[in-house]
Amino acid sequence: MSRPQPIEYSEAPPRVRAVFDDIKRTRNVEDVNNFWKYLAADPALLERTWTSVKEVMSPGVLDPLVKEMIYVAVSVTNGCAYCIASHTASARKAGMTEAMFGELMAVVGMANETNRLANGYRVPIDAAFEK
Amino acid sequence: MSRPQPIEYSEAPPRVRAVFDDIKRTRNVEDVNNFWKYLAADPALLERTWTSVKEVMSPGVLDPLVKEMIYVAVSVTNGCAYCIASHTASARKAGMTEAMFGELMAVVGMANETNRLANGYRVPIDAAFEK
Amino acid sequence: MSRPQPIEYSEAPPRVRAVFDDIKRTRNVEDVNNFWKYLAADPALLERTWTSVKEVMSPGVLDPLVKEMIYVAVSVTNGCAYCIASHTASARKAGMTEAMFGELMAVVGMANETNRLANGYRVPIDAAFEK
Amino acid sequence: MSRPQPIEYSEAPPRVRAVFDDIKRTRNVEDVNNFWKYLAADPALLERTWTSVKEVMSPGVLDPLVKEMIYVAVSVTNGCAYCIASHTASARKAGMTEAMFGELMAVVGMANETNRLANGYRVPIDAAFEK
Amino acid sequence: MSRPQPIEYSEAPPRVRAVFDDIKRTRNVEDVNNFWKYLAADPALLERTWTSVKEVMSPGVLDPLVKEMIYVAVSVTNGCAYCIASHTASARKAGMTEAMFGELMAVVGMANETNRLANGYRVPIDAAFEK
Amino acid sequence: MSRPQPIEYSEAPPRVRAVFDDIKRTRNVEDVNNFWKYLAADPALLERTWTSVKEVMSPGVLDPLVKEMIYVAVSVTNGCAYCIASHTASARKAGMTEAMFGELMAVVGMANETNRLANGYRVPIDAAFEK
Repeated sequence: MSRPQPIEYSEAPPRVRAVFDDIKRTRNVEDVNNFWKYLAADPALLERTWTSVKEVMSPGVLDPLVKEMIYVAVSVTNGCAYCIASHTASARKAGMTEAMFGELMAVVGMANETNRLANGYRVPIDAAFEK
Repeated sequence: MSRPQPIEYSEAPPRVRAVFDDIKRTRNVEDVNNFWKYLAADPALLERTWTSVKEVMSPGVLDPLVKEMIYVAVSVTNGCAYCIASHTASARKAGMTEAMFGELMAVVGMANETNRLANGYRVPIDAAFEK
Repeated sequence: MSRPQPIEYSEAPPRVRAVFDDIKRTRNVEDVNNFWKYLAADPALLERTWTSVKEVMSPGVLDPLVKEMIYVAVSVTNGCAYCIASHTASARKAGMTEAMFGELMAVVGMANETNRLANGYRVPIDAAFEK
Repeated sequence: MSRPQPIEYSEAPPRVRAVFDDIKRTRNVEDVNNFWKYLAADPALLERTWTSVKEVMSPGVLDPLVKEMIYVAVSVTNGCAYCIASHTASARKAGMTEAMFGELMAVVGMANETNRLANGYRVPIDAAFEK
Repeated sequence: MSRPQPIEYSEAPPRVRAVFDDIKRTRNVEDVNNFWKYLAADPALLERTWTSVKEVMSPGVLDPLVKEMIYVAVSVTNGCAYCIASHTASARKAGMTEAMFGELMAVVGMANETNRLANGYRVPIDAAFEK
Repeated sequence: MSRPQPIEYSEAPPRVRAVFDDIKRTRNVEDVNNFWKYLAADPALLERTWTSVKEVMSPGVLDPLVKEMIYVAVSVTNGCAYCIASHTASARKAGMTEAMFGELMAVVGMANETNRLANGYRVPIDAAFEK
């Protein structure tokens, strides 16, 4: 067997259940997403990842919607199909409209284009940006 | 000579000057950044890129600060040094504080990490995200 | 027809068969993986790729398990679904346990995160690393 | 000012100093690397990143040298100049010889090549890897 | 509903129909590809993207076949499954033979490999390339 | 010492000299580029890489200029500064004009943009591309 397997709540050891419970409570959902069920194969990794995600994605000086859109921007740039699907859903839940998604995609596309133009033309950084 | 060369306003042909003038007017700056001076080697590319950037980055349902932070998120993910420098400057100009930059970096870092965990564990997309 | 097609042993020209035979002998398997069947469309590419893979992945100062885990780390970072699946299988065959896979993923995730933090904060290389 | 600035120990607030002290103690070094001085601009990010790095990179079922080489593999694939420099240094400190570095590079190069061949030929995942 | 939905010609608003009509006329096809049906959710993005693609991919000093192969090279490097499929088809339509595809893949693979060797060995740019 | 060091011809062992001689003869140059001097630290890697590059980049059904432009397209997409510099120089030597470079950059930029739009909109592959 080479393919990683998910761990369901019913078969999870106590340390994994504690994380699943916290995810369900924090997000007010009935079950955790597949992502967490697969990470559960390594309880230390699951715990550390959830603790960080919970801290990073909670409201701060940036609101949750902006954070979710930034997450989508990174996932689209990396081409991570799972993360695009899950964080687009989270962003919509946090209030992203169809029009906002369109503008998000436009900026992500444009940034990926101009990143390469800057690379290809070997543009030196302006002195003003070095301060 | 293999390295692309910048084109300064004083030596620019009329088609390039028209774009430079529009950038200076739109952004209320005295000179255009190096990026535009290098693209000017190909006036059609310069024109098309500026027209798109101007349209995409102007205020819409997403405000300019959010757009600039998304631009930074993509540039950091791609490792484009020029674009990180220039769009971090633009984001600060648009109101990004030190605390906002810290949260932006935290989300970008976390997204890059979990994108790979989803890849490595070969996590299948939840049925709920396929609708 | 735009999609590349695999070439099975029974229909393979002699030059391709020779490579397939060497792969089967070297790895002690009954059939080659899809990867080789698709590369077989270009016998020169097939030959060169197999010769290099055979040389690079054979035991050296690094043992085969470490090499396979490095292969997985790169494939996960690039998001290559085929390579993640095939090299995770190879790594398990070479002795990678579930616990080792978990630590491998943890390092890969962490490295992808800190790579972006270093980019975003524009951290200059320490003098000590330049020597 | 748009460029992030490092925070030196002498000017660091107590929360940052505590992290710097732990890094110095754990790694038995006189000063922390630039990476930590820049992250210090956001104490929460600094703390969380160091806690994770410390946990992930400590000896486990994989030894520290293997972990450092995996870190280098990811950093080289992403083209993060800072991380390549710092983790190559860490790997050498952990025992990586010149010959090991050569084999590491060979595997990383080969994996990056075959990842794209698998993409380009649209190779379907073998049934054996789906179990 | 989190998954973007395609917009078919029959249900498209006038602004989208105008773009679809121009694509069909320019490419002499009976229907547009899925890519355009999905972008149609944001008419401004659809219009801008089509205008740019039409201009960039039309014959210039580089012929359309070369441009399509460059498109494939980028898409394979980024691992964009949709774009690999669609632009390989376009390249074949523009005259790419099986042998040309094999050489294209060989160069793309090799470039992805040597890009990482240059990164890993931290090779400084030769003075001759800086002029 | 953590930074890789170049090996000059005068200090190179016979196996490395043989490769350097072949590069100089094949390319009709007085000295090899830095890339080869750094790879020389691992003679097996140097030999294998040169053999492959020589074979892949020699004239085939694609001419050398097209191959060099594909190399640049990949290097720009990956953001490999060394490879962008060296292969842009090679492409110019092989006949790439300023206008061709401009069109190359335009296609590379556009492909990087649309790759992400296809990712973000989760566009399914058209049935016609699956045959």
